[in-house]
Amino acid sequence: MTQIQLSKADQASLIETAHAAADAARVVTLAYFRGTALATESKLKTGFDPVTVADRAAEQEMRKVISEMRPDDAIHGEEFGPKSGTSGLTWVLDPIDGTRGFISGTPTWGVLIACRDEVQVQLGVIDQPYIGERFFGGFGQASLTGPHGDEQLSVRKNVALKDAIIFTTFPEVGTENDRQAFENVSKKCKLTRFGMDCYAYALLAAGQVDLVIEAGLQPYDILGPIGVIEAAGGLVTDWQGNSAINGGRIVAAGSKSLLDECLAHLKNA
Amino acid sequence: MTQIQLSKADQASLIETAHAAADAARVVTLAYFRGTALATESKLKTGFDPVTVADRAAEQEMRKVISEMRPDDAIHGEEFGPKSGTSGLTWVLDPIDGTRGFISGTPTWGVLIACRDEVQVQLGVIDQPYIGERFFGGFGQASLTGPHGDEQLSVRKNVALKDAIIFTTFPEVGTENDRQAFENVSKKCKLTRFGMDCYAYALLAAGQVDLVIEAGLQPYDILGPIGVIEAAGGLVTDWQGNSAINGGRIVAAGSKSLLDECLAHLKNA
Repeated sequence: MTQIQLSKADQASLIETAHAAADAARVVTLAYFRGTALATESKLKTGFDPVTVADRAAEQEMRKVISEMRPDDAIHGEEFGPKSGTSGLTWVLDPIDGTRGFISGTPTWGVLIACRDEVQVQLGVIDQPYIGERFFGGFGQASLTGPHGDEQLSVRKNVALKDAIIFTTFPEVGTENDRQAFENVSKKCKLTRFGMDCYAYALLAAGQVDLVIEAGLQPYDILGPIGVIEAAGGLVTDWQGNSAINGGRIVAAGSKSLLDECLAHLKNA
Repeated sequence: MTQIQLSKADQASLIETAHAAADAARVVTLAYFRGTALATESKLKTGFDPVTVADRAAEQEMRKVISEMRPDDAIHGEEFGPKSGTSGLTWVLDPIDGTRGFISGTPTWGVLIACRDEVQVQLGVIDQPYIGERFFGGFGQASLTGPHGDEQLSVRKNVALKDAIIFTTFPEVGTENDRQAFENVSKKCKLTRFGMDCYAYALLAAGQVDLVIEAGLQPYDILGPIGVIEAAGGLVTDWQGNSAINGGRIVAAGSKSLLDECLAHLKNA
């Protein structure tokens, strides 16, 4: 297992590539989001729902950008097969995370981009094209570029479980055991909110909420958020407190103490 | 009970006033939304949470605008007492609908503005300041002004319950009876989503979702949405199919046939 040390020039190249890929996905996804004429046309022409068409088209555009700018890196996407590489770096892409949000018109879905080596996430992006918000984390930077300007991202610290705001996408998390464990944490928090898709992780990185707990995630669902949250000072692990880079049952927290409070309830689920 | 027929000049005056009030509320709410320095300062100075400070300040600004532009109209707001009027028209204001969304950083809260006579809603506004989206309905207009331009609002028609997307704010709607009735509808739909606050009504007016069902609403929670949805061709009633202008248990639908399918499940709750 190789953890890669990148030169400043390589870091700059990765950052530039991530933004270029996100820019490309933004154009494609926006062309389909909330579309009615386009949506109907797509379904008639291809037999696919518009979200499927948008998903595939956005991933293709991102793959094109990354292959041109970083030909030696591998690519794993949600929609197409893996492309191998020689650099030890892999781009992991989820062109539309939160397809249920996408088909409902809510601006809570996101384009997720991560670049990882064999051990860790080097950078992550959560992009919300409709609002025009890009959450970026990596190489000591954690930033939001949005409709009201740029700002640094930083998680909220020193929040006890009883004062925490917790997010999950679904009221029913994973299996019955998973759900019970989630509710054991949830009922000790100040506020529980639902339905935010990957936007919940972005809000955690921005210091607006304190916890996100989910189950049944794929690596491409969580690697982008890991990059953003870790750069903003937060932590993401599985429910045993181990690395989250393989997905599964996930907890993200603003601080170690809050994470530990959660894990005490989640570990035995 | 008097239903008022307004001249074109009066209609224009009401529209202008609604936008001016929404503009004023946008400035105030944005100053507090996601604020950290400001938020702490407010709490220290006033003993109020930032959302309470923002709520009150936004309502005061809207009252000032409306009192200046329409001195003869009455005003009812969530935060301050009623101001009486002589015109037969009443402005109904909810400066921050969805305070739980507001304190969580999600752009799903809204500034709700309505102008009503004794019988019906004449106009409604749902404004989302962070995204910069304004949903307006009244006097034959139904429009969205947002970050990607202007468009007409129009509900989605001819959707059967089995193909419908349904929204509610909370997984637990009202009483146990209310919840059971909601679930009877929800389990027949294609997709159920949570946590969107007043933004759900805006998405219904925009033809993105088909149903919103809630319980325990105040008039100021629903009059703005009624104005927008009715102008976009949709319907809003209580669970008995009667006028929704007094709040309570609410169902909003894109079409009469879908509303009727829902009411069959809700009427006996």
